[in-house]
Amino acid sequence: MTDFSLRAIDPALGQAVGRLEFGTRGRGFVDITRDLDRFLADRRARDGLLTVFLRHTSASLTIQENADPDVLADLATALDRLAPENAGWRHSTEGPDDMPAHVKAALTGVSLTVPVLDGRLDLGTWQGVYLVEHRARPHSRGLTVHFLGTFAAK
Amino acid sequence: MTDFSLRAIDPALGQAVGRLEFGTRGRGFVDITRDLDRFLADRRARDGLLTVFLRHTSASLTIQENADPDVLADLATALDRLAPENAGWRHSTEGPDDMPAHVKAALTGVSLTVPVLDGRLDLGTWQGVYLVEHRARPHSRGLTVHFLGTFAAK
Amino acid sequence: MTDFSLRAIDPALGQAVGRLEFGTRGRGFVDITRDLDRFLADRRARDGLLTVFLRHTSASLTIQENADPDVLADLATALDRLAPENAGWRHSTEGPDDMPAHVKAALTGVSLTVPVLDGRLDLGTWQGVYLVEHRARPHSRGLTVHFLGTFAAK
Repeated sequence: MTDFSLRAIDPALGQAVGRLEFGTRGRGFVDITRDLDRFLADRRARDGLLTVFLRHTSASLTIQENADPDVLADLATALDRLAPENAGWRHSTEGPDDMPAHVKAALTGVSLTVPVLDGRLDLGTWQGVYLVEHRARPHSRGLTVHFLGTFAAK
Repeated sequence: MTDFSLRAIDPALGQAVGRLEFGTRGRGFVDITRDLDRFLADRRARDGLLTVFLRHTSASLTIQENADPDVLADLATALDRLAPENAGWRHSTEGPDDMPAHVKAALTGVSLTVPVLDGRLDLGTWQGVYLVEHRARPHSRGLTVHFLGTFAAK
Repeated sequence: MTDFSLRAIDPALGQAVGRLEFGTRGRGFVDITRDLDRFLADRRARDGLLTVFLRHTSASLTIQENADPDVLADLATALDRLAPENAGWRHSTEGPDDMPAHVKAALTGVSLTVPVLDGRLDLGTWQGVYLVEHRARPHSRGLTVHFLGTFAAK
């Protein structure tokens, strides 16, 4: 097991919080990995925990492969099959894409927590963090980003 | 990007933990948002991270729309379609609703982490936090609630 | 509501991070609960929050029943039905099991956060933490484990 040399008791713990807004282009994936890394860099975050929280119920967050875009296309297809339009949903006043969007959001989730080491999200080589828009039309989506940990000296 | 004026290094960080019990009425959604807000108020929590953890494997937690109850009814229908009863499950000694309940719990999850700002869960306008009972009969369900952050002066 | 006697403001907060590697035997569940408990014991972690983060996109983490192994077998069957092979996936160069693995990972997630009380994961009686291998062949999978909280005196 790899052991990282964080001090066990650290009087320099603190937190930083921000809110990010993204304009989506309708159904699809928005890679927000760089925005999260920039947030960490701007706050001089060093080691700790980053929580990303999406304040909506018809969009969601997921961590998926950032190499072959076909993975994201197939994932969208898979979600369409799991929550198809015109499946007799009661909640339909906002259009046929609305209730499937809620189901997809419930299945993939709106909260992600990722360790931060030396100022960077500790993602695997092929992992990206995505905001997933499940509605057909473009929307503005707000995220809260919360870091708890240590900070680099200024 | 919105920047919140949390001190980067805060010697007043601490934690508070509680356990909440809910009696469910069988399959359905229990809105626990107010219970979580009350926990935060009771402990004088100010800014930080709230983690809600459900200590069961046939119920789960989800954040979904709190406006139109049809959304929750449709979400229950969607989960029933994804994990139907009488689908040839091996694990059936506790009744036909048991294994579908485990599948639904695995798909929606038992752990949620939400930022807290100024003593309140930083949810979007239409978001509520729900304990989802997947078993047909009423159950008693235990949640652990953990806050890590700053506290208001007494 | 149960109230735990953690000090609200605790100058002894700190963090500990490690990385664990697991060799999977191909598709199936690896119970990592004891490995996580050992990490907590080795670091003398007392009360806080444990985050487990899997650095891959075709395997995932889940908390499920540790009593009847049929539950895990049925859960694997359920995931196979939700993301079948040979369903016309575009992303197929790595084999027919690859894209279903990504879908299953997106549905079950790669990040888990669990409260820690008195040095132990605060799991329910029947809960175990599982690394789920979704690829057909064995893989080496890396996890980052992050604890934030208090530590026992040495």
